[in-house]
Amino acid sequence: MDPYAPTPADRFTFGLWTVANVGRDPFGEPTRAPLDPTYVVARLAELGAHGVNLHDADLVPDGSSAADRDRIVARFRHALADHGLVVPMATTNLFTDPVFKDGAFTSADARVRHYALAKTMRAMDLGVELGARTFVFWGGREGAEVDAGGKLLDALAWYRDAIDYLCDYALGQGYDLRFALEPKPNEPRGHAFLPTVGSALGFIATLQRPEMVGLNPELAHETMAGLSFPHALAAALDAGKLFHVDLNDQLMSRFDQDLRFGAENLKTAFFTVMLLEEAGYAGPRHFDAHALRTEDEDGVWSFASGCMRTYKILAERARRFRADPEIAAALAAYRVDDPEAAWPPRYSAEQAAALKQRAFDLAALRRRGPGLERLDQYTVELLLGVR
Amino acid sequence: MDPYAPTPADRFTFGLWTVANVGRDPFGEPTRAPLDPTYVVARLAELGAHGVNLHDADLVPDGSSAADRDRIVARFRHALADHGLVVPMATTNLFTDPVFKDGAFTSADARVRHYALAKTMRAMDLGVELGARTFVFWGGREGAEVDAGGKLLDALAWYRDAIDYLCDYALGQGYDLRFALEPKPNEPRGHAFLPTVGSALGFIATLQRPEMVGLNPELAHETMAGLSFPHALAAALDAGKLFHVDLNDQLMSRFDQDLRFGAENLKTAFFTVMLLEEAGYAGPRHFDAHALRTEDEDGVWSFASGCMRTYKILAERARRFRADPEIAAALAAYRVDDPEAAWPPRYSAEQAAALKQRAFDLAALRRRGPGLERLDQYTVELLLGVR
Amino acid sequence: MDPYAPTPADRFTFGLWTVANVGRDPFGEPTRAPLDPTYVVARLAELGAHGVNLHDADLVPDGSSAADRDRIVARFRHALADHGLVVPMATTNLFTDPVFKDGAFTSADARVRHYALAKTMRAMDLGVELGARTFVFWGGREGAEVDAGGKLLDALAWYRDAIDYLCDYALGQGYDLRFALEPKPNEPRGHAFLPTVGSALGFIATLQRPEMVGLNPELAHETMAGLSFPHALAAALDAGKLFHVDLNDQLMSRFDQDLRFGAENLKTAFFTVMLLEEAGYAGPRHFDAHALRTEDEDGVWSFASGCMRTYKILAERARRFRADPEIAAALAAYRVDDPEAAWPPRYSAEQAAALKQRAFDLAALRRRGPGLERLDQYTVELLLGVR
Amino acid sequence: MDPYAPTPADRFTFGLWTVANVGRDPFGEPTRAPLDPTYVVARLAELGAHGVNLHDADLVPDGSSAADRDRIVARFRHALADHGLVVPMATTNLFTDPVFKDGAFTSADARVRHYALAKTMRAMDLGVELGARTFVFWGGREGAEVDAGGKLLDALAWYRDAIDYLCDYALGQGYDLRFALEPKPNEPRGHAFLPTVGSALGFIATLQRPEMVGLNPELAHETMAGLSFPHALAAALDAGKLFHVDLNDQLMSRFDQDLRFGAENLKTAFFTVMLLEEAGYAGPRHFDAHALRTEDEDGVWSFASGCMRTYKILAERARRFRADPEIAAALAAYRVDDPEAAWPPRYSAEQAAALKQRAFDLAALRRRGPGLERLDQYTVELLLGVR
Repeated sequence: MDPYAPTPADRFTFGLWTVANVGRDPFGEPTRAPLDPTYVVARLAELGAHGVNLHDADLVPDGSSAADRDRIVARFRHALADHGLVVPMATTNLFTDPVFKDGAFTSADARVRHYALAKTMRAMDLGVELGARTFVFWGGREGAEVDAGGKLLDALAWYRDAIDYLCDYALGQGYDLRFALEPKPNEPRGHAFLPTVGSALGFIATLQRPEMVGLNPELAHETMAGLSFPHALAAALDAGKLFHVDLNDQLMSRFDQDLRFGAENLKTAFFTVMLLEEAGYAGPRHFDAHALRTEDEDGVWSFASGCMRTYKILAERARRFRADPEIAAALAAYRVDDPEAAWPPRYSAEQAAALKQRAFDLAALRRRGPGLERLDQYTVELLLGVR
Repeated sequence: MDPYAPTPADRFTFGLWTVANVGRDPFGEPTRAPLDPTYVVARLAELGAHGVNLHDADLVPDGSSAADRDRIVARFRHALADHGLVVPMATTNLFTDPVFKDGAFTSADARVRHYALAKTMRAMDLGVELGARTFVFWGGREGAEVDAGGKLLDALAWYRDAIDYLCDYALGQGYDLRFALEPKPNEPRGHAFLPTVGSALGFIATLQRPEMVGLNPELAHETMAGLSFPHALAAALDAGKLFHVDLNDQLMSRFDQDLRFGAENLKTAFFTVMLLEEAGYAGPRHFDAHALRTEDEDGVWSFASGCMRTYKILAERARRFRADPEIAAALAAYRVDDPEAAWPPRYSAEQAAALKQRAFDLAALRRRGPGLERLDQYTVELLLGVR
Repeated sequence: MDPYAPTPADRFTFGLWTVANVGRDPFGEPTRAPLDPTYVVARLAELGAHGVNLHDADLVPDGSSAADRDRIVARFRHALADHGLVVPMATTNLFTDPVFKDGAFTSADARVRHYALAKTMRAMDLGVELGARTFVFWGGREGAEVDAGGKLLDALAWYRDAIDYLCDYALGQGYDLRFALEPKPNEPRGHAFLPTVGSALGFIATLQRPEMVGLNPELAHETMAGLSFPHALAAALDAGKLFHVDLNDQLMSRFDQDLRFGAENLKTAFFTVMLLEEAGYAGPRHFDAHALRTEDEDGVWSFASGCMRTYKILAERARRFRADPEIAAALAAYRVDDPEAAWPPRYSAEQAAALKQRAFDLAALRRRGPGLERLDQYTVELLLGVR
Repeated sequence: MDPYAPTPADRFTFGLWTVANVGRDPFGEPTRAPLDPTYVVARLAELGAHGVNLHDADLVPDGSSAADRDRIVARFRHALADHGLVVPMATTNLFTDPVFKDGAFTSADARVRHYALAKTMRAMDLGVELGARTFVFWGGREGAEVDAGGKLLDALAWYRDAIDYLCDYALGQGYDLRFALEPKPNEPRGHAFLPTVGSALGFIATLQRPEMVGLNPELAHETMAGLSFPHALAAALDAGKLFHVDLNDQLMSRFDQDLRFGAENLKTAFFTVMLLEEAGYAGPRHFDAHALRTEDEDGVWSFASGCMRTYKILAERARRFRADPEIAAALAAYRVDDPEAAWPPRYSAEQAAALKQRAFDLAALRRRGPGLERLDQYTVELLLGVR
């Protein structure tokens, strides 16, 4: 029995666009043939996945007739049922069509904004029909290269108008659907309007129905800005906004790579898994990544299998971290309570006056070593499997 | 008459720590002698500045007796009055003392957290005594290199506890003071806990008194993460949270440089000035920068003068941008209303159903060129002074 | 008379692939129709360009018959002659075809390496037939994401084998052709094998005919690695290796943007122009950039015209820099000769012994301010057109 | 028996400046007391190190009298002998003293350039006296923030003059000493003059005695520019220029962190170790890093011990990589010979003509998958200790 073989209970999901990625990039033509969505379903089920996610256009080409749409959807639902896969998340493609070249919800052309709303409502309908409970918004074209256009403030307002409207639509339709914003700092736009997890959290606070909207943080996107993904996850969790998660890997400060989970930085992947496993996140573990363009279809399934196996190895390592007595001792020593005062402090005029006058043994506090080098080396050796 | 000579009406301010920076860096000893705060006040007044800001320890060394403190403060207030300078903003240094080596409000040692509160309350007292209306929090040591310590979620909670407490303190003291958080992605810590403007906006939404807390965005800090400062400013303005601003310059993706305003990227500086001048920001234009370490004291005053002159030149250029008929025409052409529907859309079931069915002339929308290359070239030529 | 209107004497060139770029990116379909090469020639001539450069496949689709090739080439030469344009540089596309997905000259498959040689020889033939004197090598696929393949040392050897062979071919054919390597740090590969200008200079030193091979530095590529393009140009000039140059613009540490020259950083563009104009570079000023994907064809010509105009404005500014007496005085003060000893030093045992014993007035040397803040502010104001 | 306990045979070395780092940074005062060099020697010997390296001023404060110098050196040599440690490498500090604020060998002040030569010669004397065979040049201050100074080309010439002169000095003194240049992209300067391993390789090719000069690549420095350290090592090895190596760790695109080896990216560390162990590098494995500023002295020794242990674990993992039959099979399949032609190709007019005409089965070459996702996943699982 392979302890790292994935099963549906692990809640691993992939996007149709990930395993079916054809390997096209800005400098090269596709290296792989497209895969039929129903074939993807069958293969993912074989590998032990739990579900598959999709953009509207991944399944139903834009411009399909209603009859074609219904036929495609029925065939896809059949495949899902046959193979025991679910569709926990859906989204809409507001970036491929040239109509969105200068933004969808933030286009300076109000007709484009309206079209984006219409397309999104149809994508929500499709997602709900397939069983999705989370609807993701990645604003791929919501951004700018030329600030002279002068729409920075308007763009945020238009974006908010759109999300507020779509919340109304979801409620009006009686959909059991939550929205998850997926930030990214740049690419394809020079600068994106909601560049980081923090930006999205700040934006949500300005919405009419903030309770309906959360985050879909992506490891690669946060890493592109040189930010820590575990820190971003913690911020989303702290705000009660971790509605979904996109796992992959990425080198800092370059084009969007969408590498296999764990392919670049095993420590980041480890702390990501530890947070997801320990902080009460119950949603899917979604891999938003794709096989390298060098690969053929065999490489695609190696990639998909590798994402899930690495997650499971790291989850086992997180359990071992908690069971390690030396690590436990180091963690206990790291945290120090204050014998003179409880935390959090409760303000009163007297308490504040006393705290301002309190004499601290600063020399002792300066001297104390927190033992972080030792703890980090324990972690490294745990990851390398030698403790 | 030099139209770019600064005057107090321009509301330019500098930190004591900026012009008095001694030019020490991780690899080198100071290249300049310290400057007395009262001398700084005199020189800044001569140059046309409006005010000077300070950390507690910039003026009153940590550990000073009450009598020494009062003597120092009185002498400084005298200098301010003599030279007509104000202190619009104050802050506290929670990063230099080794006691804060693993964080102040987010230290894993609760005694350090309490000490940080006490020190901050005293700094607030000092700031208010000097007339400050804004109190800035840059959490220089609030961050981590070693996530194995496991405090990511706790750290955000402790940080919130501290800010909530200090809001209570300000209210309890009857201070007319607003708080401004200053985000930074890294340095001195490997990763900081509130890394970007967005992060701080998201965090504020979780506070007990969000209305008391806003932002002090810094051009260099946002740029270190490869993010756009004008976009970050717009996000702060959109949320009603632009309480203060730190102007300087910086190359992307490297150590914190704090360069002279406009020294690196004139377009970023231009759009920054245009937003500040046009979006109703009425606070100080604070330069949080310092002369290059190569410079002697003459270089320091060239630096300070240069920051202000460049701002004024760019403000004049922003007015010219608005007065340029070709630019106005290009801007007008960039925005397109929708003859069939108002924006923002008002949801009703019928309206949504109609919008989903609406036929858009997608071919026309795809074809339309927004004219952004032309508009951007106009901007470049305006900046270069040839239009 | 517009002093900034380009003329052929300015030696401005564009690649066929630049103005004819269709605006496809990893997340979106083309926004513009392809342009016929002869139409491009006509339009560039109208705008005042000097020449046009090309990849083999830009003009002659891979797999064309000999007859088709000859017909296409003849028609193109006709257009060049009609419009007075030249083809100073040619290159070969070794990146679009999936055959090159894991490298061309550095593929682990020796058949691909041989095919890349054959394709390059044919492209050299084409380039020479069109009059090119410089042949550029951008190794778009020469790189890796997976170092486990273990070919790092072999790849450099294979690359060298290929360039050595192609030098032999050029000589064997009697071609008057120099090679110019174009480095890039990453994209489309995770890491490229010759990532920076320095890397290419180091590599050239290991070739059999280093005198035939030089550099084609690109502003955007060097900037992607956070390096200074003027510094990279200086390194190429210092080594006598500036054979060609690719001008454009780029934000640091993100995907390859190929922005209009001067669109992002006017100071970098200015020092680039000043070096090219003053350091004896006599080759073409080639713009390897493209209009933003938002633009229609009008935007393309705004883009092309803007590249050239900005260059000419900055060249005029460089002349003004040299004519400015305050700047001249600041520059003169910046450089200090040593009254006691000539530079460069001539070694002898006695001279060295004396130098080791020499007493330096270190206090004075430490005190001296080089005046760089002032000089830089002069430069900023010169660029802004207010001095 | 702990298989990962370091011994002198492993050739691990540390700089005096690394373990004795006091934890000062741009925003904070020292957190640790200085350590006496002889104490450092004793502790490193206990931990299993092979040697210790130094800057002149690490051991002998600048400005010491000849008698003091000799006394300090004698005491240090005694400690080395007592504890069986060697000094394989020495260097000179040309960055801390404000005299070097605008460069040492590249200062615009010729007096500073001469002083830098004198200081370096004395440091070479000291290094040779202590047994060093490698002398490192890290040009910490060789760079610029302000290109208006106009010295870019001169700076490279002055740098070359200095290195040429010092080669003469070494030969003139009969020293058995090789020079190793240590590139870094930025910090403390905005841009450094030899920013990457490639830059240094290119520069060496312009020297009078290129055979005496090689590289000291540093993992953190190359990583700061977003470049791959294994790729940089391969370039240095390919050129026969890997004279020394600086091991540590670093996140991309931020300030110089000098983290514990393996602390950030275990895959980069693994491929670094594999190259060093397999490519014939026989020099010291030098750790140019320091304990986190949070740490006390215990943390320092955890840090030092961790660097060495992680190296040994990864070296064992490299041996296991070679012994793994599935990995061997994947590697064998990755490389494909060409049955029709040998590589490297030997040019003749006939051979070239034939190659240009050769028909390749491009469809087959396009289809072939190199199996890199599988191979990379094998590597990840090998590192995690589950294969």
